[in-house]
Amino acid sequence: MSIQGNAVVAQSGGPTAVINNSVCGVVQEWLKGEPPGKLYGALFGIRGVLEENLLDLGRQPSHIIEGLRYTPGAALGSSRYRLAKEEDFARLLEAFKKHNIRYFFYIGGNDSMDTADKINRFADGVDYEIRVIGIPKTIDNDLPGTDHTPGYGSAAKFLAATVSETGLDLKGLVTSNRIVVLEAMGRNAGWLTAAAALAKREECDAPHLIYLPEVTFDRERFLKEVAGIYREYRFAYIVASEGIRYGDGRYVFAGGEKDPFGHVRLGGLADTLKELIEAELGVNVRGISLGTLQRSAAHFASRTDADEAYAVGAAAVQAALRGETDVMITLLRDETAGFYRCFTGTAPLSDVANVEKKVPAEWIAPTGSYLEDAFLRYAHPLIDGQVSPVFRNGLPDFVHLQNFDLPKLRRRLDRDVAGVIK
Amino acid sequence: MSIQGNAVVAQSGGPTAVINNSVCGVVQEWLKGEPPGKLYGALFGIRGVLEENLLDLGRQPSHIIEGLRYTPGAALGSSRYRLAKEEDFARLLEAFKKHNIRYFFYIGGNDSMDTADKINRFADGVDYEIRVIGIPKTIDNDLPGTDHTPGYGSAAKFLAATVSETGLDLKGLVTSNRIVVLEAMGRNAGWLTAAAALAKREECDAPHLIYLPEVTFDRERFLKEVAGIYREYRFAYIVASEGIRYGDGRYVFAGGEKDPFGHVRLGGLADTLKELIEAELGVNVRGISLGTLQRSAAHFASRTDADEAYAVGAAAVQAALRGETDVMITLLRDETAGFYRCFTGTAPLSDVANVEKKVPAEWIAPTGSYLEDAFLRYAHPLIDGQVSPVFRNGLPDFVHLQNFDLPKLRRRLDRDVAGVIK
Repeated sequence: MSIQGNAVVAQSGGPTAVINNSVCGVVQEWLKGEPPGKLYGALFGIRGVLEENLLDLGRQPSHIIEGLRYTPGAALGSSRYRLAKEEDFARLLEAFKKHNIRYFFYIGGNDSMDTADKINRFADGVDYEIRVIGIPKTIDNDLPGTDHTPGYGSAAKFLAATVSETGLDLKGLVTSNRIVVLEAMGRNAGWLTAAAALAKREECDAPHLIYLPEVTFDRERFLKEVAGIYREYRFAYIVASEGIRYGDGRYVFAGGEKDPFGHVRLGGLADTLKELIEAELGVNVRGISLGTLQRSAAHFASRTDADEAYAVGAAAVQAALRGETDVMITLLRDETAGFYRCFTGTAPLSDVANVEKKVPAEWIAPTGSYLEDAFLRYAHPLIDGQVSPVFRNGLPDFVHLQNFDLPKLRRRLDRDVAGVIK
Repeated sequence: MSIQGNAVVAQSGGPTAVINNSVCGVVQEWLKGEPPGKLYGALFGIRGVLEENLLDLGRQPSHIIEGLRYTPGAALGSSRYRLAKEEDFARLLEAFKKHNIRYFFYIGGNDSMDTADKINRFADGVDYEIRVIGIPKTIDNDLPGTDHTPGYGSAAKFLAATVSETGLDLKGLVTSNRIVVLEAMGRNAGWLTAAAALAKREECDAPHLIYLPEVTFDRERFLKEVAGIYREYRFAYIVASEGIRYGDGRYVFAGGEKDPFGHVRLGGLADTLKELIEAELGVNVRGISLGTLQRSAAHFASRTDADEAYAVGAAAVQAALRGETDVMITLLRDETAGFYRCFTGTAPLSDVANVEKKVPAEWIAPTGSYLEDAFLRYAHPLIDGQVSPVFRNGLPDFVHLQNFDLPKLRRRLDRDVAGVIK
């Protein structure tokens, strides 16, 4: 059922703490037995194919491939480049033909699944035989058709641990600091923000209030809720998604810039809410913004998540070799088991492309500012277990792929350099 | 040599990831054999004595005391309250007499050692026999008379891991993000900022530039250095201390507020440098500010640090019982051993009070924007080993002391409530 030819694996969009597990799964599964060809890694996402920056992953030492299992960041390099122009598709086809690429594994989120779907349709239209498999990845957990998305569990685990730890810090120093506002990533789906609820063990533990983009933000209600918690505990720990909006659709915080997909760049919400609370309630607030830590804290990755990220990579190779194309690998929770178990499955790319799965309304508390136990039951297994990286000198000994040399690649990257160094 | 009477242990200033190890060391050492009296924990630092909020630590379950070994935040509560007024000392003496306190263990940094010294001198002046022992704690590592300070190793380890991980995130997404500026805590001493250097394994790894408060910040040189790195690698990872200043003494960033010790509240430097680089070099910058994560990330604490924090607590009890007073416990590195080993010692409180130990000039690179290997040799052992917390549902199962009940304490805390809830 397999066709002779080579394969390309590429990483797209923002990395996760476990995204390289999927590369590892693809590589180790592909190299089993008699692969139908070589396996290339495209450097910096789809651009690596367009620019023919391909790395023969079969030639990487096995300890480096194995080290991908605990190394964060996109080991192959990632990109937010949007395939849109006619020429891009023509150029892609040319590169596929030149290198006899018959398998394309694309690790990414919503936008990437759309790209993968378009590539498949374009190849179909020109009668070029290629099997395109999407491998899900996003800390946002917003891909449909799958119980959850690899990358989410580790981000959720780190976020929850951070809320728990900085919550204890706040509680122990409540004589100086009063209120913490932690800003979590998540534009339209509040999965990661919701994960903060996993931190609470006792009634007065952090977090006290959680604001998701699924719920319209009401300034007055917010202030009333914060004041209520503060009055009760003499401290308050608030977690809010960067993507929360007012009733008229405006982001509570929005910078001016847009990314290549036309999305407004977010970030800075913690400061906005800090100013609001300080001005209206007169209480000292500390803002915390986790930035890229949320998607790169591999030192505290979820073992469950890391293993599943590996599994979807391996499953992608199996699906392609048995003849599937135009699908994304999914995770299906076995609801009949008395314990947590997931199988891999597939869903048509067109079904998942550009669709965002949100936190169901029934998992959000009636107040709109906390989560129900149903969410906790869903999320708990996803953060279970710890990854054990190899350590050297007290730190995880992360790996770099051989011949992934940024200075040498810089001439090619230069076309994309927006800034001008004076 | 021990005198009959009770003891108090108190925590002061900002917590660390391992500060409760010192409480655990004090409690477990005190309860060995036949203690000369009860051991109380003062709730919220010295205020707990002034307000007679004392917790009998001998009555806490042993699993909770043991759980302090991996629980962050100040388990007893901490405070930045400054003992200054005559009445404070008189009130303190009254409380000491009422509860027959003959041993006072004060876990803190520079300001706290000064307070401990003053308490000792005051008691001396009124002929009240009490043994006052300082237990060092600060992520800043700026206490003199000790090789290093418990709390530093864990903060350094978390910071270095974060630089390493977010550095890989940046490198893998260099097509979108260009430059990261990470802001580290540290007002006058750059020890924690310097720890970022522990992250670098290969030449082009993060961090590339490190700015300490020990070195005068020069705007033009900074921009030139950043541009140079960026030109070479097409990305740049910069770590800077919140306390860096211009030649005229102004902080590069300074908010208006002051804390009770008269220090300007810092924070926001990452944004300042982001704006500077974007304006002058035209390159997209991401700022990261770790906030209280630096001092609370117990999930990734250094085993060496945690064990030493325990050891200085236990050593404080031993020193007090053998008759010492007015000293701080120190860590003395065995320079003759071919491996890393520290003993505990003591230093007079007056020698350490209000003195800040800075990063030696010879450990800073001649450029002023990196560290020499001598620093790495000093710091490496301090981040070695991992603490293994008890886990529950995928997260560390942190403990709370019994009867440490914030809502119940709130009436007493209310006198300190600065804000007014409308």
